[in-house]
Amino acid sequence: MIYFVTSNRHKYEEVKKIIGYEMEMVSMPYPEIQADSLEEVAKYGIDYLKDKIEGEFFIEDSGLFIKALNGFPGVFSSYVFKTIGNEGIIRLMKGIEDRKAEFVSVIAYYDDDKIHIFKGICKGKIAEEIRGNKGFGYDPIFIAEGSNKTFGEMEMEEKNKYSHRGKSARMLKNFLKNRLNQP
Amino acid sequence: MIYFVTSNRHKYEEVKKIIGYEMEMVSMPYPEIQADSLEEVAKYGIDYLKDKIEGEFFIEDSGLFIKALNGFPGVFSSYVFKTIGNEGIIRLMKGIEDRKAEFVSVIAYYDDDKIHIFKGICKGKIAEEIRGNKGFGYDPIFIAEGSNKTFGEMEMEEKNKYSHRGKSARMLKNFLKNRLNQP
Repeated sequence: MIYFVTSNRHKYEEVKKIIGYEMEMVSMPYPEIQADSLEEVAKYGIDYLKDKIEGEFFIEDSGLFIKALNGFPGVFSSYVFKTIGNEGIIRLMKGIEDRKAEFVSVIAYYDDDKIHIFKGICKGKIAEEIRGNKGFGYDPIFIAEGSNKTFGEMEMEEKNKYSHRGKSARMLKNFLKNRLNQP
Repeated sequence: MIYFVTSNRHKYEEVKKIIGYEMEMVSMPYPEIQADSLEEVAKYGIDYLKDKIEGEFFIEDSGLFIKALNGFPGVFSSYVFKTIGNEGIIRLMKGIEDRKAEFVSVIAYYDDDKIHIFKGICKGKIAEEIRGNKGFGYDPIFIAEGSNKTFGEMEMEEKNKYSHRGKSARMLKNFLKNRLNQP
């Protein structure tokens, strides 16, 4: 059994659909530092949690990085979402031609000894308006490369094919599979 | 001698002008957590620093809380400033009538045993456009109650009379004075 420490049920469902392994959600809060990268935030979280949780576990941190806004909302995506929301991002991007953005997901897995980092990136752009009500967070304003829909217009299975979190979760799945096959 | 742990020379100059005591700037980085209040951020910082610094020291954390934006940029003010800047705030506030905002400063002072918190609040509003080039950060878009100028249009001495940091620094000054007078 491995544990996914998160208080976000959407994230848990998305990752569970990919991983396959026996997995449980643990809703234990941990400090998230104001760092420049998701990796730093995740490593700090693991250091805090490793003495508090028995066995193997992982956390996931993700963010939306908009090029024309110098990476905003970035590592503070969830806070920014809670305050200015998708409406705020659309407002900040009004009239801006370069709409390039990246969704990034970092999974930090603690194997009871070392930290393993898996980073998934999904390139795309910010939509001109809010579209769809599936998923969560910035999903209704993000259009992945290779699609015309926003993540908010996709079912979970389709979103997972493109998404940053789908990628990091598949990396974790491979890591777990390869480890089991080792002598 | 007391130490002000900060990497922001503007803050150091403002507080030094008020405190009077022998004071030195220490530019040592410390983790800032993503918390809901400046107090939590400051307390976490003190806990990290107290074993690393000899003697008495303090840190200061401040933020701009805009009512119509649900408190944004709040505890993440410095990150938001680095990415979308004053232009971003003005853009988010375009056409919004309720321009009420508060500048908040929290000083956390560690007396080698306990943490003392001093909180200064300056009520005001967001200007319609960027004005002035004095101060730092959001100063050019904040107008304090009782003034028509932005902080960006004030000399440091005038700003200190109104400002959140002026208030928290005067509280710290009084605390230090009273402590010296005790038997």
